[in-house]
Amino acid sequence: MKVVTTFREAREEARGRVVLVPTMGYFHEGHLRLMEKGRELGDTLMVSLFVNPLQFDDPADLARYPRDPDRDAGLAAEVGVDVLFVPPLEEMYPTEPFTRVVVSGLTETMEGVHRPGHFDGVATVVTKLLAGLRPHLAVFGRKDAQQLAVVKRLVVDLSIPVEIVGHPVVREPDGLALSSRNVFLGPDHRPTALELSRALMAAADLVEHGERRAAPIVAAARGAAPHLQFEYVELVDQDGLTRIERLDRPAFLAAAARVGPVRLIDALFFDLSPEGEPVPDRGVFLEAPSVLYREAG
Amino acid sequence: MKVVTTFREAREEARGRVVLVPTMGYFHEGHLRLMEKGRELGDTLMVSLFVNPLQFDDPADLARYPRDPDRDAGLAAEVGVDVLFVPPLEEMYPTEPFTRVVVSGLTETMEGVHRPGHFDGVATVVTKLLAGLRPHLAVFGRKDAQQLAVVKRLVVDLSIPVEIVGHPVVREPDGLALSSRNVFLGPDHRPTALELSRALMAAADLVEHGERRAAPIVAAARGAAPHLQFEYVELVDQDGLTRIERLDRPAFLAAAARVGPVRLIDALFFDLSPEGEPVPDRGVFLEAPSVLYREAG
Repeated sequence: MKVVTTFREAREEARGRVVLVPTMGYFHEGHLRLMEKGRELGDTLMVSLFVNPLQFDDPADLARYPRDPDRDAGLAAEVGVDVLFVPPLEEMYPTEPFTRVVVSGLTETMEGVHRPGHFDGVATVVTKLLAGLRPHLAVFGRKDAQQLAVVKRLVVDLSIPVEIVGHPVVREPDGLALSSRNVFLGPDHRPTALELSRALMAAADLVEHGERRAAPIVAAARGAAPHLQFEYVELVDQDGLTRIERLDRPAFLAAAARVGPVRLIDALFFDLSPEGEPVPDRGVFLEAPSVLYREAG
Repeated sequence: MKVVTTFREAREEARGRVVLVPTMGYFHEGHLRLMEKGRELGDTLMVSLFVNPLQFDDPADLARYPRDPDRDAGLAAEVGVDVLFVPPLEEMYPTEPFTRVVVSGLTETMEGVHRPGHFDGVATVVTKLLAGLRPHLAVFGRKDAQQLAVVKRLVVDLSIPVEIVGHPVVREPDGLALSSRNVFLGPDHRPTALELSRALMAAADLVEHGERRAAPIVAAARGAAPHLQFEYVELVDQDGLTRIERLDRPAFLAAAARVGPVRLIDALFFDLSPEGEPVPDRGVFLEAPSVLYREAG
């Protein structure tokens, strides 16, 4: 594995079909599974690791965002990453950035309401990574469901020749969606945190029993999480992110809640079977707790 | 010369170093000189021809924007263009575009004041062309001086690996900067229109006589155009577009005025000599009137 710090060096390592997995580091199996998927899909597997200040609406969240570049490099090498792109701030923002990529229409709801400016930062940095690294394909997690829709849209809107692949949510054995921020959850927060994935699974159960109406599906989710104070629970279509009344197209149920010191999000996608029936994507459950909880450093 | 209508086809024609000249068609020597310059600078010369609705703040201006694709194709072939990319609207905007590239800091003055939204449209379509065609180099005219600064900035900010080259303003024998919109100037508008370039040349004369202070330079320009109602005359630094007091760095003098049915803009760049002295770039004067006035079609 080659570790590079500039776009130019990264491009020079490209051989054949290039797959990019963009990350902010502090790897867990969510990242590692994306990388393994990427490994299958191309010839050169690039992983970018950059904690992007532009997408943090909360400076405190940025300041404490967990980092462990050495462990990250070790884990990336283990899964067969070819190029680990770790740009310093001067490479990403050599001068104060005047340019923003703004995706309207998809960013005014859900996360957009609770994290003002977040998606401008995401769209801008993703555009930079795609323009500067020129992958043929890029893999994003389905946990950040709204982000995935934003990225898919900007790629079409900006004529960027890249295929965007969404990967199922990777979950702890108890169902909690993996997130680097989970390291901040104490043992006493865990029971409440678990209600988030349980809420989504309850909705999936109901859909598998035949329910198609949005209202009871959302109510089932809320009902399964009596101690959680949701910021939102929404059933929206996968591409346009408009709220739907019936589960008659590709959609996802997304939810967010603050638990102790952490803001958690999770999503459950409903894809359509060839017969047009919604098929819940419950994600991938780990058999043992994530590497996230291995001793750091 | 190959005429293609999709980004994919255009990319497939790329051999070696690719140079792009983005245009809105209705070619005159301003375009042709840019193409000739591009011809020298690379192996594959691509010209894009797309009248971009996103950058027109005035629907009437868009509706009457002159078009003659057959003549354009003939002229492009004559100067040695390899690939003429003429995308239909469906290729550029297959769905309603939600994404805008916004360059703040450089777009709130001069043209930005008089054409709200214009630069968002320019920045967005230029990003698309650079992302979708992947040139190594792109040539833009210095007449659109503020646009050139915006493009240079977005390329850095978005990490797009392309070199941006500015080309001197190409002028009619009488000094008028070439513009496709000049076809709308009647003979009775011409004397007033000519005052625009005369204003800039008067400023250049003064600088060559040793003047370095902005106020007299701008006053000289205004004084040389007694019949012109300027929208603005500004002396700004080339990259940051901030108004300067003294001509002690690379700068340009930009001006705009409405003459009859047409809004005209022009610019005169001051580059620095090795000794740090400002050198006016008066542009390239044609020896005979532009092909613009050949019988169309």
